[in-house]
Amino acid sequence: MEVLFATSNTNKVEEANKIAAEYGMSFQQVNIIYPEVRAESVSKVAGEGVRYVYEKLKRPVIVEDSGLFIDALNDFPGTYSAYVFKRIGCEGILKLLDGVEDRRARFKSAIGYCDKKGVKVYEGVVEGSIPCEMRGSKGFGYDPIFKPLDSEKTFAEDPAHKNRASHRRKATELLCQALSPR
Amino acid sequence: MEVLFATSNTNKVEEANKIAAEYGMSFQQVNIIYPEVRAESVSKVAGEGVRYVYEKLKRPVIVEDSGLFIDALNDFPGTYSAYVFKRIGCEGILKLLDGVEDRRARFKSAIGYCDKKGVKVYEGVVEGSIPCEMRGSKGFGYDPIFKPLDSEKTFAEDPAHKNRASHRRKATELLCQALSPR
Repeated sequence: MEVLFATSNTNKVEEANKIAAEYGMSFQQVNIIYPEVRAESVSKVAGEGVRYVYEKLKRPVIVEDSGLFIDALNDFPGTYSAYVFKRIGCEGILKLLDGVEDRRARFKSAIGYCDKKGVKVYEGVVEGSIPCEMRGSKGFGYDPIFKPLDSEKTFAEDPAHKNRASHRRKATELLCQALSPR
Repeated sequence: MEVLFATSNTNKVEEANKIAAEYGMSFQQVNIIYPEVRAESVSKVAGEGVRYVYEKLKRPVIVEDSGLFIDALNDFPGTYSAYVFKRIGCEGILKLLDGVEDRRARFKSAIGYCDKKGVKVYEGVVEGSIPCEMRGSKGFGYDPIFKPLDSEKTFAEDPAHKNRASHRRKATELLCQALSPR
């Protein structure tokens, strides 16, 4: 079963296809701009986005949205993680948390799927914390400042662990389980 | 001439009406939710927003969007100023600028107007800088950390000056000049 993946990020498609292969599925990238609504949840962003794309393409398609939610910052940067990263980066987040004791945070991913039956959204979450300095050089985005609960290493130090335990893997697996022909 | 003002913020309508009265005009508040697009400019947000509202109401209407753009933070918080304010506040911005020498910033306002002839957008900008601490208790939002170039006081210390010199007044005046029956 082949499903379109509306994204400009080729890495995301490759990552998803590694997981999808385990379910006899694959995703085919399609570059289509969709409006990202301003919402408090990644599920809402992915759900609205995929509905828009489906109306254009009329073929089964997914849209993924994710974000970093930090407790002490009232869930900042949240659904605006990409925008915030481009402007203040990991350094900005560390500065905001300077002297803050509560370092709890989570990565959330939501995958919106739409076909002629309508929209379904699959979510994945990974709990963790923000260390006091950037560590590691693998991965991208906030990976150097996110340490999952079950590891001493950040996602940027241990990409193999990220690949096994990430929010995006969890959401992708739920999607594949729901769609899998097996 | 009466024009609708799509906003949930009564203060904004009152502020605009004080200026509009000088031009023999007035704005009537209408509470209608419109999608705020994710864009780099307040003009784009206001222009797209007002187009949506006009399609619903079919009566002359305005939408206003504004933001604080800080040079050393790559224009952060920019078009997401309201979202960022709710989460990290003035304190967060000051923390991000801790130890930063370049304090230049500007407030931008854009008013989108739409009638049967289409959309027009009017912009106002006020240049200034971010002091090292919050000062003053008037106004709202980022007013305690914005000092316009031509004053030693922040907008929150000197609301009369804000009223004369603000980004929103400038945009409102341009709109009124364009629409004024005089």
